[in-house]
This record gives sequence, C-alpha cells and structure tokens, in this order.
Amino acid sequence: MGRPMARHILDAGFKLTVASRSRGPVDELAAAGARAAASPAEVARESDVVILMVPDPPDVEAVTFGPDGLAEALAPGSVIVDMSTGDPILAREWAARLAERGVDFLDAPVSGGMEAAIAGTLSVMVGGRAEALERARPVIEAVSGRIVHVGDSGAGQIAKAANQLVVGSTIQAVAEALVLARTAGVDPVRVREALLGGYAASRILEVHGQRMIDANFKPGARAQLYQKDLGIIQGLARSLGVPTPAFDAVAEGFVRLVERGDGELDYSALVMLLEEQAGVRVAESPRAEGTT
Amino acid sequence: MGRPMARHILDAGFKLTVASRSRGPVDELAAAGARAAASPAEVARESDVVILMVPDPPDVEAVTFGPDGLAEALAPGSVIVDMSTGDPILAREWAARLAERGVDFLDAPVSGGMEAAIAGTLSVMVGGRAEALERARPVIEAVSGRIVHVGDSGAGQIAKAANQLVVGSTIQAVAEALVLARTAGVDPVRVREALLGGYAASRILEVHGQRMIDANFKPGARAQLYQKDLGIIQGLARSLGVPTPAFDAVAEGFVRLVERGDGELDYSALVMLLEEQAGVRVAESPRAEGTT
Repeated sequence: MGRPMARHILDAGFKLTVASRSRGPVDELAAAGARAAASPAEVARESDVVILMVPDPPDVEAVTFGPDGLAEALAPGSVIVDMSTGDPILAREWAARLAERGVDFLDAPVSGGMEAAIAGTLSVMVGGRAEALERARPVIEAVSGRIVHVGDSGAGQIAKAANQLVVGSTIQAVAEALVLARTAGVDPVRVREALLGGYAASRILEVHGQRMIDANFKPGARAQLYQKDLGIIQGLARSLGVPTPAFDAVAEGFVRLVERGDGELDYSALVMLLEEQAGVRVAESPRAEGTT
Repeated sequence: MGRPMARHILDAGFKLTVASRSRGPVDELAAAGARAAASPAEVARESDVVILMVPDPPDVEAVTFGPDGLAEALAPGSVIVDMSTGDPILAREWAARLAERGVDFLDAPVSGGMEAAIAGTLSVMVGGRAEALERARPVIEAVSGRIVHVGDSGAGQIAKAANQLVVGSTIQAVAEALVLARTAGVDPVRVREALLGGYAASRILEVHGQRMIDANFKPGARAQLYQKDLGIIQGLARSLGVPTPAFDAVAEGFVRLVERGDGELDYSALVMLLEEQAGVRVAESPRAEGTT
C-alpha cells in the first residue's frame, strides 16, 4: 500500500524521499520524482514528516530504533506517522522514547484497503499529540479521505482494533447469511441486492459479499495478515476484561482458515468453511438445479 | 409501521380501504381520506391489491383464512402482499392455498424500520410469482425505495432471515467494538466516526452505534420482537444444516436480554450486557476520568 500512497504525496507537490527493503517500488517512485534513500536514517535527514507503512511491529521498531534508523537522524520537532496496524502498548512506548528526543510519534493506522490507498481515500485513525497531528496533517491529507484524531498515543491502534473486530465479524455475518440463503435455494445475488437497501447494508456486504458471490478470493487483504489483528484484538479484550463472545467464534474460523493453508487468500474466503459444512457454494447459482 | 405506509399509499393517489384491530390508526387514516372497513373481508371486497402488516404468522393466518378473512372475499386475480416478517414454509403453504382460488400471495417483508416506513424508503424482498409482483408493484412502490424480486414463494422470507442475521450480528460487533474502545479509555464517539470512513462502515454503526453512544434504547425495534426473527433464522439454519457459529453467540445475548426483562428496549440495548460485564458504559465519556 505504500506505493500508491507515496504517489499521492508526490502528486500533492511534497518533496518526497523514499526507502524500502524492496527495490521495485523505490525505483518506480524515483522515476516519478522522489529521491531514493539507502536507509531510514537517510530519509530522516531529508524529512520533517516521516510516514511508515511496514508489515509488523518488529519492522516499525527496526526502522525507527535500529542501526541507520529514523531516531538517530530525525531533528527535534519532526513527526513520525506510523500507518501500520500494531499494538497500542508498543505505540505508547515508542512515543515516550521519541519524546525524549523531541520527536513525535503518531500511531495512525488506516482502513479502506488497497482500493482506498489507490484512490487516496484511506480512513486514518490517529493517536498522539494534537500539535504533532497538525504539523503532519497536510501530508496525511494527501492519502486520506477522513482523518480522525481519536486520542492520546495508542488511541489510533485501539480504534483500528475496534475497526478490525467489526470488519471480521461483518465478513462472518455476511458469509453465514449468504450460505443460509443459498442452501435454502435462494439466489445470493438478489439477497445481497435486497440487503443493501436496509439495515443490513455495509461496506463489507457491498465489497466482500460480491467477492463471495464471484468466489474471487484473490487478495485484497490476506487472511494471514488478519491473524496479527486477531491477536491484537483478543489480547486487548482479555487484558481489559471485555467479553467478545461473537468475535471469538469469528476468530476461530479465521485461525482454522489459515491453519489449513488458505492464508494467502483474501479474508472473505472465510465463507469457504461454511460452504463446505453446508455442502453448497455461494458462487453457484441455485437456479441451475431448481429453486426449492 | 402500517400507519405511515398507508399514508404514502394515499399520497400516491390510490383508493385505500383500511382495517386494523386498533381503532386509532383507522380513524386517523379515515380522516386523511381512506375508507374504514370493519373486517379484512370488507377490505377484500373493495381491493385488488391487499397489503398486510401484522405482528406474527398467526395474525396473517387469521386475517387471511379466518372468519371474515381476506380469502373468502377476494376476487380471482387479486394479490395479497404480506409485508410482515414470518416463516418461509408458511408463506409457501399460504401461497399454495390461495392459488386454488386464483389469488396470489407474495411474501414481501421489509427492512429499514420505522424510519424508512415514515420516509417511504423501505427495502422490500419479494417471494412469489413475477406476474403478481408486477400487478402489485405500483402500490409497493409507494412505500419503498428498493424492491427486489428474490425468487419463488418463501424467498422473500428467506432473504429477510438473512437480513436479520446480518443486522443482529452487526449490532453485536458494533457493541463489542465500542465497549472495547471505551474500556481502553478511548472516546467511542471518535471511534464510530473513524470507522464510518472505512471497511467497518455500516448502517448499523451509523444508526445503532449512535444509539449506544447516546444510551438511547427507546424503540425503534423492540428486542422482544427480534426473538421471533431469531427463531426463524435458527430454525432455518438447523433444518438446512448451515453452521452459524457467530450468530449463535449473538442469539444467546438477545435471549438473555429479553429474559432479564429488557425486551421492550430497542435491540441496540444488547450493548448493556457487555457494558455490565466490562464495568463501563459506552455513553460515559472516558475524558471524564482521564484517558489511559
């Protein structure tokens, strides 16, 4: 997702320096007018706002505090905007460590997926100091359609955990509903259409309901990556004593999907587990075999 | 919901005859230009399209096949449009019985609640013969924003069961997410706002998420009434062998809510169960006691 986001930042007229472990995106962005840097430290020396979009918390830690990392090279008054999804506790810890150097760290995870990254309409949930957000806002605005300052450090990651809980649960609900309809001999295409007009309407029904109908599980968002989110959500819920009885059943399905080797599929492939148990496929028109 | 729907039918210029066990709505509609009838049979003698909006399947059965009911008085070629939520098996049975008299019976339950009934934008899911739907369509259009012909008799009720499964599960997901955020010291108002911009966006988050934030559980849709839907969904799923592991947890919560005496509240009151277990209230700003 970093690549289309960087393009939007360039298009908005910012001077952009990029670094990545993958050569391809860096070369492509350099050809489009960005400066290619050999290390995070080199990015830091050229920048007062740094956007991070990396897979996992250990990657954020390495890029920020590792050798040739951001922390050693950023000037006081700079802002790191970490758009990766991660753990709120770590976000608070990193913010505290960087505050000692006069550098702000915003946890600013996003929702909307690759589609919104390409359109420049990501929803950004920000935790950290309001003053730091104001300094970084023009850059964040270049990639997003909505910026919400949720609260202090960690609040962005907590909002993202809430977001992912709702996303996973809604995928499961849509899957259960479409498999139920299909098993009863009713066309899931028409059910999706009808449901989009009332209280069952959701972005997931729209996008991932259509994926289930097309049996199109090309990611999108890999089920494997959602495992990280599961861990964060359930870790938070358990440590805070918040019951999540329905999400626990959802999580069990996602774990099963990955364990059996389907982790590279889009997370809407969750429907396959229900299809197999019910002995139907949502993607097959019930008309082919006669409506019951 | 019958009252605002009848107003829209009058406003669209149809000649309308109304009957109800409650005197109030009949008098009000008579004052607005409708003809008041003393029985369903009297409505039937004046009408070629009859809309039913009654609480339960036994009410549909009584109004249709009971003494002074619709069946004995409707002319062949007439259409009954049953907009109540009910059992698909019964819908098929009633359609078959009426077909012997040359009368069509459409199962045509709705989504969107009182709000959509007042606005005239209900989503209508229709099961039954396409020809019958075409005859009734102008009247249905007066109350709805979307009409989907889902399939043969019963298909409307199956789509509604799928709808209610998604609605209940999404209420639970939003409740779990807001309680999680609130317990972690983050403002649910901002979380809702952030989530509405990405893949977690839904009509339920918009409407019922706001209800949870306001602790406004004035119905709306009474939890008690949703019990009927639960029974239909779980009956269908079990008889067809469709697993609904997450919805089963949702259903358990709704049953608990009603059993403890909160059945008269809106179904978004489901959040109260989680709030009590977590020891927080979504409606209380976390700011009041300091963000963690």
